[in-house]
Amino acid sequence: MKILVANPNTSTGVTDRLVAAGKMVASPGTELLPMTASYGVPYIATRAEAAIGSAAALDMLAERRGTMDAAIIAAFGDPGLGGARELFDFPVVGMAEAAMLMACTLGRRFGIVSFSRSLEPWFAEIVAWHGMTGRCAAIRTLDEGFKSIDDVQEEKEAVLIDLALRTVTNDAADVVILAGAPLAGLANKIRDRVPVPLVDGIQAAVVMAEGLVRMKPRKATAGTYRRPGPKDSKGLSAALANVIAHRDS
Amino acid sequence: MKILVANPNTSTGVTDRLVAAGKMVASPGTELLPMTASYGVPYIATRAEAAIGSAAALDMLAERRGTMDAAIIAAFGDPGLGGARELFDFPVVGMAEAAMLMACTLGRRFGIVSFSRSLEPWFAEIVAWHGMTGRCAAIRTLDEGFKSIDDVQEEKEAVLIDLALRTVTNDAADVVILAGAPLAGLANKIRDRVPVPLVDGIQAAVVMAEGLVRMKPRKATAGTYRRPGPKDSKGLSAALANVIAHRDS
Amino acid sequence: MKILVANPNTSTGVTDRLVAAGKMVASPGTELLPMTASYGVPYIATRAEAAIGSAAALDMLAERRGTMDAAIIAAFGDPGLGGARELFDFPVVGMAEAAMLMACTLGRRFGIVSFSRSLEPWFAEIVAWHGMTGRCAAIRTLDEGFKSIDDVQEEKEAVLIDLALRTVTNDAADVVILAGAPLAGLANKIRDRVPVPLVDGIQAAVVMAEGLVRMKPRKATAGTYRRPGPKDSKGLSAALANVIAHRDS
Amino acid sequence: MKILVANPNTSTGVTDRLVAAGKMVASPGTELLPMTASYGVPYIATRAEAAIGSAAALDMLAERRGTMDAAIIAAFGDPGLGGARELFDFPVVGMAEAAMLMACTLGRRFGIVSFSRSLEPWFAEIVAWHGMTGRCAAIRTLDEGFKSIDDVQEEKEAVLIDLALRTVTNDAADVVILAGAPLAGLANKIRDRVPVPLVDGIQAAVVMAEGLVRMKPRKATAGTYRRPGPKDSKGLSAALANVIAHRDS
Amino acid sequence: MKILVANPNTSTGVTDRLVAAGKMVASPGTELLPMTASYGVPYIATRAEAAIGSAAALDMLAERRGTMDAAIIAAFGDPGLGGARELFDFPVVGMAEAAMLMACTLGRRFGIVSFSRSLEPWFAEIVAWHGMTGRCAAIRTLDEGFKSIDDVQEEKEAVLIDLALRTVTNDAADVVILAGAPLAGLANKIRDRVPVPLVDGIQAAVVMAEGLVRMKPRKATAGTYRRPGPKDSKGLSAALANVIAHRDS
Amino acid sequence: MKILVANPNTSTGVTDRLVAAGKMVASPGTELLPMTASYGVPYIATRAEAAIGSAAALDMLAERRGTMDAAIIAAFGDPGLGGARELFDFPVVGMAEAAMLMACTLGRRFGIVSFSRSLEPWFAEIVAWHGMTGRCAAIRTLDEGFKSIDDVQEEKEAVLIDLALRTVTNDAADVVILAGAPLAGLANKIRDRVPVPLVDGIQAAVVMAEGLVRMKPRKATAGTYRRPGPKDSKGLSAALANVIAHRDS
Repeated sequence: MKILVANPNTSTGVTDRLVAAGKMVASPGTELLPMTASYGVPYIATRAEAAIGSAAALDMLAERRGTMDAAIIAAFGDPGLGGARELFDFPVVGMAEAAMLMACTLGRRFGIVSFSRSLEPWFAEIVAWHGMTGRCAAIRTLDEGFKSIDDVQEEKEAVLIDLALRTVTNDAADVVILAGAPLAGLANKIRDRVPVPLVDGIQAAVVMAEGLVRMKPRKATAGTYRRPGPKDSKGLSAALANVIAHRDS
Repeated sequence: MKILVANPNTSTGVTDRLVAAGKMVASPGTELLPMTASYGVPYIATRAEAAIGSAAALDMLAERRGTMDAAIIAAFGDPGLGGARELFDFPVVGMAEAAMLMACTLGRRFGIVSFSRSLEPWFAEIVAWHGMTGRCAAIRTLDEGFKSIDDVQEEKEAVLIDLALRTVTNDAADVVILAGAPLAGLANKIRDRVPVPLVDGIQAAVVMAEGLVRMKPRKATAGTYRRPGPKDSKGLSAALANVIAHRDS
Repeated sequence: MKILVANPNTSTGVTDRLVAAGKMVASPGTELLPMTASYGVPYIATRAEAAIGSAAALDMLAERRGTMDAAIIAAFGDPGLGGARELFDFPVVGMAEAAMLMACTLGRRFGIVSFSRSLEPWFAEIVAWHGMTGRCAAIRTLDEGFKSIDDVQEEKEAVLIDLALRTVTNDAADVVILAGAPLAGLANKIRDRVPVPLVDGIQAAVVMAEGLVRMKPRKATAGTYRRPGPKDSKGLSAALANVIAHRDS
Repeated sequence: MKILVANPNTSTGVTDRLVAAGKMVASPGTELLPMTASYGVPYIATRAEAAIGSAAALDMLAERRGTMDAAIIAAFGDPGLGGARELFDFPVVGMAEAAMLMACTLGRRFGIVSFSRSLEPWFAEIVAWHGMTGRCAAIRTLDEGFKSIDDVQEEKEAVLIDLALRTVTNDAADVVILAGAPLAGLANKIRDRVPVPLVDGIQAAVVMAEGLVRMKPRKATAGTYRRPGPKDSKGLSAALANVIAHRDS
Repeated sequence: MKILVANPNTSTGVTDRLVAAGKMVASPGTELLPMTASYGVPYIATRAEAAIGSAAALDMLAERRGTMDAAIIAAFGDPGLGGARELFDFPVVGMAEAAMLMACTLGRRFGIVSFSRSLEPWFAEIVAWHGMTGRCAAIRTLDEGFKSIDDVQEEKEAVLIDLALRTVTNDAADVVILAGAPLAGLANKIRDRVPVPLVDGIQAAVVMAEGLVRMKPRKATAGTYRRPGPKDSKGLSAALANVIAHRDS
Repeated sequence: MKILVANPNTSTGVTDRLVAAGKMVASPGTELLPMTASYGVPYIATRAEAAIGSAAALDMLAERRGTMDAAIIAAFGDPGLGGARELFDFPVVGMAEAAMLMACTLGRRFGIVSFSRSLEPWFAEIVAWHGMTGRCAAIRTLDEGFKSIDDVQEEKEAVLIDLALRTVTNDAADVVILAGAPLAGLANKIRDRVPVPLVDGIQAAVVMAEGLVRMKPRKATAGTYRRPGPKDSKGLSAALANVIAHRDS
C-alpha cells in the first residue's frame, strides 16, 4: 500500500527524517511517499503558523488525492486534520493523534517532550482537541535556541533526554512522546536511556495508517465527517477548489 | 475609536449586515471599518473552510494593521483568533467568543442557534476551544437549504425562532445566541418572540472590543500570547510575511 | 445611563476607589452611582461573610430599584448575583464574573491575585460557580497582615506585583486579574511592571454593564433566571420583602 | 448525643416532619433538637431565598452553639454550610450533602426528585458545589402547584412516585433522593413502589452526623475550614457577631 | 446488627487491627465479624493483586451470605465492590469509598496518605471510579520499605505524619485519609499532631454500613445494580457459583 | 510475529470467531494464537463476572508467557489489562481499548453497540477507565434474549444494525464500535448498511498489537507500569504465583 507523508513544514530535511523513521516500522509492501509544503514556514511552532499550515495541508492532500491509500499529516499539531477528514475519502492520520493513541496503550499518562518553548500552546490545544488532556501528564520543551531545524535532534539530544527523565520523575508520566517532525527517529536512538517506553510520532502514524487501510472503514456519509456538499470558492489552489466544488471525480 | 470588522467570508452583503447591527450598540465616536475576505468561500461552514478562513483572517489583519484600535474577526467560529492574538499588539475579539462571554452574564447556560446543519461541528469545536462547553446547553441548526446567504435571516425567521424556543424548552437554555455572521441584527427583530434574552454576536463583539480599548491592556511579552520571534517564510502574502518576519514596524 | 455600584462591604473608602477606577473606562454619559452596605463586615473574606454579604446585596438592589439602568455587585466573589438576576429586571453584573470574562479575551488562562489568604476558598468557589475553573491558572494571595483595607493596595503594591509575576512564571497565566474591591484602580498603576495584561474588576464590570444596557436583552420569563412567583416572607427588609412579594411595581 | 436539626425555612410543620423522620434511624441515646428559622420564607426555593436562608442558618447555629454535639442544616440546598464549617467547631452536615453521599453507596448515579420546579437551579448548584455533578443522573421536579407545604408529600405522592420511576427508566438513575425538607419521611412510605433504593435526606444527615460525632474529627486549624481570625461587624445578630468577633468562648 | 469485615488480604494481623479500630465507633449492639482471605497476597498493592483480590472478595461474601446485615470490603481500593453490589441483597460498603465520602463532610478536598509507593496507581483508579478525583488533593505514599505489614503503622508513624502535613501545606488538603487496612486505628493516635481532621477508613465504613442498615434501602430490581439473571459457570468456588446461578436461596 | 488471542470467556466458539476476524487484517507473517479461559462464564457481562475474568486473564497470560511477542485480552471490557501491563514485559492490548483508540481516528465521538443490556455498566466503566468518556457518544445494547452466544451476531444482525443507525441519528456518533467478542467479524458483513465507519474490536487489537511489536517500546522500569517487586502469595495458579514471585525467568 502507499501512504503519503505530507510534511506541512517547508524543510525537506525534516521530510527525509520522517520517511526514514517511518520505514523502520512499515510492513513489507508499504511505500511511504514523501511530500513537503511549497509555502509556509520551515517548522510550524505557533498558532498563527499552524493556521497557515492547516490550509497548506489541505492543499497538499488535494493535490495528491488518487495516488495513495492513506495520508499522514506529518507535523505534531495535526494541522488541517479535521478538514481533511471531511473532504477526502481515504484515511488521514495526524502525527500527534497517532502518537497519543499509541501512547495510551503503554501507560496511564504520557509526557510530551519537544524542542521549542513556542510549541507548547499549539501542542496543548491539539491535545485538548483530541480529548486527551486527561491522559497528558505534561508538555516539556527546550527553552534554548538551536542551530538548524534539520539537526536539532542531534544537537540537543542530551537536553531532550533530560526533559524526558523529568516528565517521568516530576510529572509521573508512564510513557514519553518525542514530539515534532524534527525529532523523527530519535526514540530508537535513546530508547535505553529513559526508563519508560518512548513513542515516535511518525512511527505511530505509519502503524495506524496501515491499520486503517487494512480495516477498510467506509467513508462516512453521515456524522460530522461526512463530505460537505459542493461549494464555490475563490482564490484557492485549483486542486483544493476542485475538491470543495466536487469537481474531483 | 476605530474597530475593524474583518469578515473572513467573501460575501459583502454579510459584511453590510454586520456593520449595521454593530452600529446599533456602538458608543458615539466609535467607527466600524468593514472588510471582506478576498479569497475563500461565501460563508464558512466546515472545518476545512475554517482552516482556509483562519489563514485569510490573519492576512486581513496584517493588511490593515496600524489603521485601527481593535479588530473583530467577524465569523462565529473565530477563525485565526489565537494566531491573531500572538501576532498583533491591538486587541482582537472573536464573534463566537464575545457572544458566549456576554451570554454568560445573562444565564446559566446558553443555546446556540444557527442556519446550517454543517456548522455544528465547527461551532462545537470553538465552544470547546474557549472552555465554554459546560455553559453551552445545545447547538441547534436548520436542517434545510436556503436561497441566499445574504437574506437567510429573513427567509428562515420563523424556523429560527422555533429553534430558539426549543433550546429553551428542551435544552434548558437561559439565553440564546443567534450565531453566524448572516444572522447579524436578527436578535433585535425577534426579541419579543423568545422568552429569554437573545445575544447578537457582532453586537457582543463591538461591546467587548470597545471595552478592551478603554481598559488599555498591554500587549503580552510573556505567556502564550507573547509575540513569537521573527521567522522567514515563503509563499505568504507580503503583509503577513512581513508581520511574521517582524518587518512590520 | 446610570449604573449602581453596590459595594456589599461596609467600608466607604473602598466604594470611593471603585467609583474612581470605574470612571476611567466609562463612556461619556455614563454615571456611576455609589452605594455602601449598611450592615456586614468592612471587607468580605470568608464563606460565612459572603453568606451575609449575599443577603445584603439583595437588600441594596431592592432598595435602589427603579433608579438605575444596571447594577454592579462590587465585591469580587459576586455575593447574591444569582438571586439578583432572578429578582430584578435590570442587568446585574458581578465583579468577579466581569473580570474573568474580559480576561478570557486576553489569554488562555488567567491568574487571580489578591490581598488576603482567607479569600482563596471564596474566590475558588466563585470561579467554579461561573464554570471558569478550567481557565483559571491559579489564585495567589498575600499571606501577611495589612494596616487598613482602604489603603492596602498602596501598602502592599510591591508584594502584589511579585505575586502577579509568579502567576505568569510559575502558573503559566497569560493575564492577571487584580481581585477584590480594595484593589480597584491598581491595574492602571502597575501596568508596565507585569509582562502580561492586567484586568481590573470594576473596570471590566463597568464595560460589561454598559454593554448590556446597550444590547437591551429582555428580562427572562422562562429559564432559571425568570422571576419567581410572589411569596410571603417574614423578618426581611421592607424593600426586599416587597420585591419577593411582587409589591414592587 | 444531641444533634440540632436547624430548619432554615420558617414552617414549623416541616420541622416536625424532619424530626419524626430522623428519629426512625437515630441510634438509641441520640436526641434530635428541633429549631425553625425566625425569619425568611416558608420554604426556600430560589437562589435569592437561599441567600437569605444562608445568613439565617448561620444565625441559628450561632444562637444554639454549646448546646449540642453536631448540627444538621435541614434544607436540601445546604444554605450556609460552608460558612458554618468555618465558624463552628462542632460537625455540621447538610441535608443535600448527606443524601448524595449516602446515595453514592447505593448506585452509580442518583436521581433527585422534588416538589417544585423552581428548586431545580438551586439544587443543581448545590450538586455542583459538592462536586457531585458527575454522579447525578437528573433532577426532576413537579411542575404544578400544591396546597400546603406542610402536606405536599401526601397531596402529591402519586406524582412524586411517577417522577422517581422516570429517573430510573429515562435517566438511568440507580438510586433516588427524595429532596427537600417537606418530603422528609416519604421514602419509608413509598419504598416498595420504586424499583431502586430511595434516600431520605434527613435520615442520611442523622446517620452522618452521628458518625462524625463518633469519629471525633478535630476542628481544622489549617486548610480552608480553619476558623477565620476575629473581625468586627455591624448590624448582625448578637450571637453571630459574637462568633465572628471571637467573643463566643 | 452484624457487619462482616471482609479483609481480602491474607494477613490476619491486619484483620485484627481493622476490627479493633472499627469497634471504637460502632454503636452499642453492633457486632463486627472478622474474615480474612484464604488466598491472595498479604497486602494488595498493585492492579494485578487487586484483580485477584476482587475475585477473592466475591468468594468471601458469597461464603458468608445470610449471616450478617451488611458487609465491609476492608481494603482501601474496594476490590470487588461493584460486583458485590450486583450479586448480593445486603448493603456492601468499600473502605476507600466510605473514607472519601465521610471526608467530603470535613473539607473541600482530601489528601490520601499511605504506606507504599506501589499503592498509588490502584488508589488513583479507585478515586476515579468513585467520581472523586475532583475532591482529591493528592495521594502521598511512603517511598521506603518496612519490616512487617502488621506493624507498619508503628514503625513508620513519624513519616506518615510528615506526609499528612505535606498534603495540608503543599496540596491544600482540608482533611487527610489514612489509607490502607494496615493503618486502621492510626488516626486516633496521631489526631493532635496534624492540623486538619483525619479519617480512618474502617471507622468510616462502620459508620456508613450501620447507617445503611438503619435506613433500610431496598435491593434494586432496576438500574445497574439490579441482580443479573442466573448463569452457569465453571471452575469457581461453590459458594460463588451458587450465587451466580441463583442457587443461593 | 506471534500474538496471543486470550479469550477470558469460556466459549471456544467465540475464540474461533475472534481469530477468524483478526486474520482478515493481520500482516503476512503474523500468527494469531488462540486461547480460551479454563474457568469463568461463557461470556462476561457484569462487573462481578469481570472481576473473575480479570483474574482469569492474568492466569492465561502467565501460563503462556515466553511463547509470543504480544497478547490481546479478547473481551471488550479489557479484564485484567492494567495488572497484565504491570506483570509482563511483552505488549498487552485490550479489545475495548484498541477499538476506542482506532475509532478516535475515524470520528469525533464513537457509539458502542452490543448484544446484551447487562453489559452497559461494565462497558461504561472501561470507557471511563481509558479516559474516553468524552469521546463516547452512547452505549446502546440489545434488550432481548438470544439463543446462543456463539451465533448471536447472525441471529440479531438486523437489530444490531438498527442500534448502530440509532447511535448515528440520535446520539451523533461519527463511528460505531461493534463491541464484545461474540460480534467479531460482524463489521465486515454489515459495512455498507451503516452510513459511518464501523470498528471491529479484535481487528483493531491486532493492528495495535502488531504496531507495538514493530515499534519495540521498552518495558517500563519506572512509572505506574513498572513491574512490582517479588511477593509471596497463596492459593494462586502456579504460573501466576511464579510471575508474582519473580520465579518466571
